[in-house]
Amino acid sequence: MQRLSHQRCFGGWQDVYRHRAESLGCDMNFAVYLPPQAEREACPVLYWLSGLTCTEQNFITKAGAQRYAAEHGVVIVAPDTSPRGEGVADDPAYDLGMGAGFYVDATQAPWSAHYRMQSYVADELPALVERGFAVSHRRGIFGHSMGGHGALITALRHPGRYASVSAFSPIVAPGRVPWGEKALTAYLGDDRDAWRAWDASELVATAREKLPILIDQGEADEFLATQLRPDLLETACAAAGHPLTVRRHAGYDHSYYFIASFIGEHIAHHARALRT
Amino acid sequence: MQRLSHQRCFGGWQDVYRHRAESLGCDMNFAVYLPPQAEREACPVLYWLSGLTCTEQNFITKAGAQRYAAEHGVVIVAPDTSPRGEGVADDPAYDLGMGAGFYVDATQAPWSAHYRMQSYVADELPALVERGFAVSHRRGIFGHSMGGHGALITALRHPGRYASVSAFSPIVAPGRVPWGEKALTAYLGDDRDAWRAWDASELVATAREKLPILIDQGEADEFLATQLRPDLLETACAAAGHPLTVRRHAGYDHSYYFIASFIGEHIAHHARALRT
Repeated sequence: MQRLSHQRCFGGWQDVYRHRAESLGCDMNFAVYLPPQAEREACPVLYWLSGLTCTEQNFITKAGAQRYAAEHGVVIVAPDTSPRGEGVADDPAYDLGMGAGFYVDATQAPWSAHYRMQSYVADELPALVERGFAVSHRRGIFGHSMGGHGALITALRHPGRYASVSAFSPIVAPGRVPWGEKALTAYLGDDRDAWRAWDASELVATAREKLPILIDQGEADEFLATQLRPDLLETACAAAGHPLTVRRHAGYDHSYYFIASFIGEHIAHHARALRT
Repeated sequence: MQRLSHQRCFGGWQDVYRHRAESLGCDMNFAVYLPPQAEREACPVLYWLSGLTCTEQNFITKAGAQRYAAEHGVVIVAPDTSPRGEGVADDPAYDLGMGAGFYVDATQAPWSAHYRMQSYVADELPALVERGFAVSHRRGIFGHSMGGHGALITALRHPGRYASVSAFSPIVAPGRVPWGEKALTAYLGDDRDAWRAWDASELVATAREKLPILIDQGEADEFLATQLRPDLLETACAAAGHPLTVRRHAGYDHSYYFIASFIGEHIAHHARALRT
């Protein structure tokens, strides 16, 4: 691991590291915020998954999360959104390829050579973080839009691995919306049955662990009706008896101004689960 | 005035406007955060002046100020850092021309045609804001680096106009540091006597109003010893009996991670003066 930057923030440190990601077959950047408490105790780790087009930078510069992480003594790790670099497949569209890994393990060429973001965020990165930093093994996960989808499926696919999960404006049913249909077709192929293991609105039906889900959604979000459809997860959770809270906020859009407005409440939600 | 964006944030609105700036002879963008209180009362206005290379966007996306503005009921206006557009003089260097107006009124060609940022931030913009929004006539001013210099000279040059002033990592003595010497030579000419009216460390000697100055400075700031030199303002304020608080923070650099860490305390400082 090579440390690319190291900046004091709210009494802790906002760092960015670069490392060789074996699951992805490329070098990857990830950000880590170490709150002041991390100097003297093993803090829990909250993983943030970003949305389409983002790198590890968007969340750490725009969400204002460090204040709350410092308040609650929580480490926050924010990876990039896809493999990158020479030799990594890409597509000119913003919603496929680099910046659009969708947190799945691709099975279709050319994507399957590098696009194994689920293995990276669920396995390799936590192992690296727990080996490289003096943190606890308590984990939470959250994210935004494509990263909200990533947080939901990662928690649902790994019962017992996360103590808490939440999302801002998530894609909850990728198998039934245009962003998801395009990405899952490319990464997983045409067989829609294979998509169900990567779709939160399908996974809740068979979830062994009923980890409560918290979702915040802006009502002025330009993608709400076409791409996000929280109603599809509400229906699925109601049928499965899976605990879900969807909070709708009048006037808020899909941007980091929305995330910043409620990030403190999400971190408090995770801290309650992580620090008990 | 044309509204370019309108985004809900912490219960208020983060807006960006574009207008014809007569003092600058070009179109300009400025950001305005309207806290929830602005819907029912005339809130005071806090002006933020950004540093080299910034536009009106940097502060509103990175500082995390909206939370505190909403808490205290303060409007925050953040202008761009120079005139822009076709026909506006520029220089390839990052520290002269566009993005580097230094908040002075230039007297030297080619800059004098458009670079009148002092008139813009001290006169035209407040008049526009107080005419266009239902705000009070109570004003505070703060900024970062070149914008910290801008906040200090603007307050010192206009006794009675601002109820409060503060700065992050400001250039306090532009006549005695490389950034300032270069800019003031270009904008004001070789006569160093003419620079004194644009140098906070000179202006405090003759200030009619002893408005207390709050400064936060990171000790790991890469520009501290060469460009910022808060000690020069401390010496000048001590000689003049001008109230000054400089808080030095171990480990913090020149970035928005530093600003975000202490922006809440600055807004509280201004709110105490503005809302009494």
